[in-house]
Amino acid sequence: MNFNFYMPSKLIFGCGSLNKLHKQKLPGKKALIVTGGTSIKKYGYLKRLEEELDKANISYCLFDKILPNPIKEHVMEGAALSKKENCDFIIGIGGGSSIDSSKSIAIMASNEGDYWDYIFGGTGKGKSIPNDPLPIVAVTTTAGTGTEADPWTVITNGKEKIGFGYEKTYPYLSIVDPELMKTVPPLLTAYQGFDALFHSTEGYINKIASEMSDLFALKSIELIGKSLPNAVKDGNNMKAREDVAMANTLSGIVESISSCTAEHSIEHSLSAYYPKLEHGAGLIIISKEYYTIIAASNVCNEKMINMAKALGRKDADKPTDFVEALTDLQKACNVHNLKLSDYGIKKEELPDIAKNARFAMGGLFQCDPHNFTDEEVLNILEKSYK
Amino acid sequence: MNFNFYMPSKLIFGCGSLNKLHKQKLPGKKALIVTGGTSIKKYGYLKRLEEELDKANISYCLFDKILPNPIKEHVMEGAALSKKENCDFIIGIGGGSSIDSSKSIAIMASNEGDYWDYIFGGTGKGKSIPNDPLPIVAVTTTAGTGTEADPWTVITNGKEKIGFGYEKTYPYLSIVDPELMKTVPPLLTAYQGFDALFHSTEGYINKIASEMSDLFALKSIELIGKSLPNAVKDGNNMKAREDVAMANTLSGIVESISSCTAEHSIEHSLSAYYPKLEHGAGLIIISKEYYTIIAASNVCNEKMINMAKALGRKDADKPTDFVEALTDLQKACNVHNLKLSDYGIKKEELPDIAKNARFAMGGLFQCDPHNFTDEEVLNILEKSYK
Repeated sequence: MNFNFYMPSKLIFGCGSLNKLHKQKLPGKKALIVTGGTSIKKYGYLKRLEEELDKANISYCLFDKILPNPIKEHVMEGAALSKKENCDFIIGIGGGSSIDSSKSIAIMASNEGDYWDYIFGGTGKGKSIPNDPLPIVAVTTTAGTGTEADPWTVITNGKEKIGFGYEKTYPYLSIVDPELMKTVPPLLTAYQGFDALFHSTEGYINKIASEMSDLFALKSIELIGKSLPNAVKDGNNMKAREDVAMANTLSGIVESISSCTAEHSIEHSLSAYYPKLEHGAGLIIISKEYYTIIAASNVCNEKMINMAKALGRKDADKPTDFVEALTDLQKACNVHNLKLSDYGIKKEELPDIAKNARFAMGGLFQCDPHNFTDEEVLNILEKSYK
Repeated sequence: MNFNFYMPSKLIFGCGSLNKLHKQKLPGKKALIVTGGTSIKKYGYLKRLEEELDKANISYCLFDKILPNPIKEHVMEGAALSKKENCDFIIGIGGGSSIDSSKSIAIMASNEGDYWDYIFGGTGKGKSIPNDPLPIVAVTTTAGTGTEADPWTVITNGKEKIGFGYEKTYPYLSIVDPELMKTVPPLLTAYQGFDALFHSTEGYINKIASEMSDLFALKSIELIGKSLPNAVKDGNNMKAREDVAMANTLSGIVESISSCTAEHSIEHSLSAYYPKLEHGAGLIIISKEYYTIIAASNVCNEKMINMAKALGRKDADKPTDFVEALTDLQKACNVHNLKLSDYGIKKEELPDIAKNARFAMGGLFQCDPHNFTDEEVLNILEKSYK
């Protein structure tokens, strides 16, 4: 048994925890608030954040251009604004796109050059980062990426959608307030919940998994199995929202100390080509074929059985039981009929998308318990096309 | 569901992990090594630590006076040495006494005055600490206190044995190498293992427990139930040592985000009066009566049943089942016949010891699920006297 554990973010979890922000020790006197979309404004979350900062005597400016699949150009633009305004720290408020962007902006707010200079994989130059990023505060309004409890940020540059992160890109402080998630519509609740689920399932079957990461992964899988269908059916069911929020935070810890697998590489390639494909939807679409190959490879039967049990299938005794439990969960969340062809994806592009998965995020293939061939990756995409 | 989570120490866990120390980023160029006893030298652990520091080009000096129940005088003496030698960080190597002392020395190495100026409870003055402590590196050679994964340090000043800690006394880095625990003799293995167990049981039944702390607590209880008897019977059983070491680290995380209860206040009072009473032995001696009162109070029946199940009693259905499972575990570890009268404790002192428990560490009584009266505390001590 060998593992490293490092997750230095302070987590403030619970309904109403946004109201506690002004009581926290904050890492500076001026913040850049990073967000995107309209729901943060529409539901008053941005205003509540600003009130908290007012109470704490923190001044702030706003960068609100972040896209659902955030792009490098906005990282550079946000960082330029932070430099111009002399901000001391970055607050990401929203879903994974806003918080991931806040991490990348935090890097470029204290460093020169181009963000892609520091990225590993694809055309990234993999340079070391001279200066520490500005401190990051995360306020999550969705339960999907686990970014509040991990160092990772996923940014798209052209057709490269690449994850990056290191010890200094953990949030300094993360506010996880399930009340802010009440307004996430049912379909997005499902997409995001499955993203959290797959962070835990991939982290659990991972070659670098440990008894420590397994502890968080199985609890996360159990909470999603128990409560995601209820959160999808009734967004005001706060017990279900809490469970899914906690599952998501735990999945972030899993990503911090274990890793994702090729399932994520393949999806990132898909949504780099088709930015309108929501990341969670892409994962749901390819998941059945991905886990069917894992099950057939017989490389981690006991873990597949444990995951099936964690999803509620107490009598599970073979790896395909997890594939069935996963399909049942997708039915319960009404996302079992999604397919790639729904998103205007061209079938003739699938071979390029398959190749790009390994080009842009090949590292995750090495963490997979099964060695996926290019043919198998293409096969997953073709069967998921329908 | 509400919780805060903060445990910023980097943990390097596993057999042989001491050999990885020189590859870690260390927080300075000169270290004060803090330790006690002779086993650290006898088994070559100190020499191995020094070799790692040599490889990393870190200079060091040694303070090796720490007692099993560490005292304030040695905190002050170690801190004076650190100041004189201009050390950048403190390395505690050994059991809880050495690592706790390294935390307290780290505070006084960068601050003026007396250690008790900063202590809450008893005659402590409760002043705020002006300067951050020096960074702390912990190398554990026992599995008992969980101090590698929590901010706490317990120091004795006269008859006051008081726990203290805050955000800045978490270790910067902790090496948990179960191979270093092979040389702990059977009886001490049992004492320390039960200390770890009680950190988790007290944290689990605690008023401030959360679903997050429960995750670590139940896993820790399960690992101790499964492997402590094997570690006691055969100190070279590395699987058992690993399980107990991991349980201990998890119990440290429990102490970081939940808390101990009056069981610990009572024991600290006992070993403040009788420093020859090992902390773990003291806990074992009073535990049956303590948990019998908890069971009779019916304040946390479900949690008592869950703890009994985690200890392996799968058919548990009432709170006293935990008391029975605990007694069985003590029998399996051959520590079921310990009693206070074995330690030369005077029966007429028990009322003073009972009063001192609340005087010195009254805060923990407020975390207890049951409101212990002074009479009940005395009753626990008298019944444990035998």
